[in-house]
Amino acid sequence: MPSTETITLHNPLDMHLHLRDGDMLRTVAPLSAHSFSGAVIMPNLVPPVTTADDVKSYKERILSAIGKERFAPYMTLFFKPDYDSAFLESLRDDITAIKLYPAGITTNSEGGVSGFDVETLRPALEAMSALDIPLCIHGETNGFVMDREAEFIPVYEKLATAFPNLKIIMEHITTKESVAALDRFENLYATITLHHLFITLDDVAGGMLRPHLFCKPIAKRPEDREALLKVALEAHPKVMFGSDSAPHPQHAKESCGCAAGVFTAPIALQALAQLFETHQAPVEKLQAFISDNAQRIYGITPPKKSVILQKQPFAVPAAYNDVVPMFAGETIDYRIKEVIDG
Amino acid sequence: MPSTETITLHNPLDMHLHLRDGDMLRTVAPLSAHSFSGAVIMPNLVPPVTTADDVKSYKERILSAIGKERFAPYMTLFFKPDYDSAFLESLRDDITAIKLYPAGITTNSEGGVSGFDVETLRPALEAMSALDIPLCIHGETNGFVMDREAEFIPVYEKLATAFPNLKIIMEHITTKESVAALDRFENLYATITLHHLFITLDDVAGGMLRPHLFCKPIAKRPEDREALLKVALEAHPKVMFGSDSAPHPQHAKESCGCAAGVFTAPIALQALAQLFETHQAPVEKLQAFISDNAQRIYGITPPKKSVILQKQPFAVPAAYNDVVPMFAGETIDYRIKEVIDG
Repeated sequence: MPSTETITLHNPLDMHLHLRDGDMLRTVAPLSAHSFSGAVIMPNLVPPVTTADDVKSYKERILSAIGKERFAPYMTLFFKPDYDSAFLESLRDDITAIKLYPAGITTNSEGGVSGFDVETLRPALEAMSALDIPLCIHGETNGFVMDREAEFIPVYEKLATAFPNLKIIMEHITTKESVAALDRFENLYATITLHHLFITLDDVAGGMLRPHLFCKPIAKRPEDREALLKVALEAHPKVMFGSDSAPHPQHAKESCGCAAGVFTAPIALQALAQLFETHQAPVEKLQAFISDNAQRIYGITPPKKSVILQKQPFAVPAAYNDVVPMFAGETIDYRIKEVIDG
Repeated sequence: MPSTETITLHNPLDMHLHLRDGDMLRTVAPLSAHSFSGAVIMPNLVPPVTTADDVKSYKERILSAIGKERFAPYMTLFFKPDYDSAFLESLRDDITAIKLYPAGITTNSEGGVSGFDVETLRPALEAMSALDIPLCIHGETNGFVMDREAEFIPVYEKLATAFPNLKIIMEHITTKESVAALDRFENLYATITLHHLFITLDDVAGGMLRPHLFCKPIAKRPEDREALLKVALEAHPKVMFGSDSAPHPQHAKESCGCAAGVFTAPIALQALAQLFETHQAPVEKLQAFISDNAQRIYGITPPKKSVILQKQPFAVPAAYNDVVPMFAGETIDYRIKEVIDG
């Protein structure tokens, strides 16, 4: 007999999401909009989202793609050091955050920042501080792949010290070093993905090579995953869920040069429910991790939506159109029973 | 005007080679036999090579596949702890070494050794010592992928100490820890592959994911590659070239679960010539690394063959039948100008 056990999550938020554009946007946006109340939308399109027109038209395309779902796309700009106070003020109501990419560090980040000189960045970052616009950072150097995130921490520290009123979000953290940095600076926060709570480099390259688990930052060591799990399961007040769900067509993943990104949006809540249960973490912690912490940190009030998850086997599809999700073909212990607006 | 600069390598040996069987054997064996005088042939077929009949019939299939090329297939047995003195003595002239796989550690190694208890292994290893049969070991634990080789070193040390007259070859070493172990035990030797002299994990997973560079042991850190390069370029007397060239059909590499192995046999000499030149290592060192050290360590006298490499661009084919080689589509600075028997 199927279990009738359910848990209800209120207003789930994905604080780091890639929706792409065009056909891919139309494939993936409805999937996120179905089970989440809102998401912070990454701006690394080609070309990146850097103008008021870019933000507004991308938001319109997203809203058009999701149709009638209740879902807030929290828009972001692609950080440029020459953003000035007047420009940012004019856009204050249209954006939720600004995303900073070191140049060339991940998909479509070629136009990012290549130095982290405080004085060069000061005008833009002080304007953001004054307007209370959070700065989201993909924190990796160009160093050896397993060291890139830990090597970037001095940059976080420098920025956190120089701009004490700027909220800095360490995006998709993957290391124990980043977890430790959270508690050293009042204005450092973090998002954690689904996949980095589940996998290490062993899952990517320890047996067969598994391209659908290949992402940036790459999954790290077991002790890193343990550190991430600890702060997620306890819903550390400075930690938020951000899937970094990053769709690529199947042929781009299973090829000679496989693109980075794990597609998790449509299975994230189900997998998190299972993960928190496995570790006997109370549902209140999951609620804080999936929504409450983010609302408090960002000062946002998402559309009301209740997602009822039932403890019943959920066979994860092999693909959503031509995008292969994490856990494709496997079974998760929870399925979405019902989504209630309001 | 093309350069007329040439170097000549005498009797090159590949001390660790996978030739597979059937169609794949017929594809790859002639490629090795063309440019090498001989190779140590790995026994991890399905089922593995464990009997006199297995060894003899596999050798016949190899000789049949290579046709008229002058080439010595140095045969190996798949190590089993129950091999006894009489069995090994009866096979002494048919095998050059015995290969030990920890259970489940790489392609077709399911029947390998799962414990390394000295007393359990003593009868077989003492028989090998007495018959002067080298023991080749794939030295990895089942631990975290980046730690497996370093974690295995205590096993090498235990065996090297317990069986001081047994020649133990640490196969395809990838870490500075293994390089350091070479000088601590008189009876420890090592093979080094082509690809581990060229790549680190950054090349496999630092940019796009590159399945054709995925192998076991996985490529490690820059400082590990530096340590390997040092002993290869100086032709450390206990170090030999062993390609671990491991062909898989293209579809098995570019798929959802990619098999481990880099195919280097047909481009190895050309790439080594370039590598030694780049690092200004004298050709005598390459000669020692590619043949002389192995002849001395194994006590073998390969068929005479001179390979003349000319400094001219060599466009590496996209594939040999359906097997994609390392450097596919790239250009190497050296090509094979002529191979002279005798």
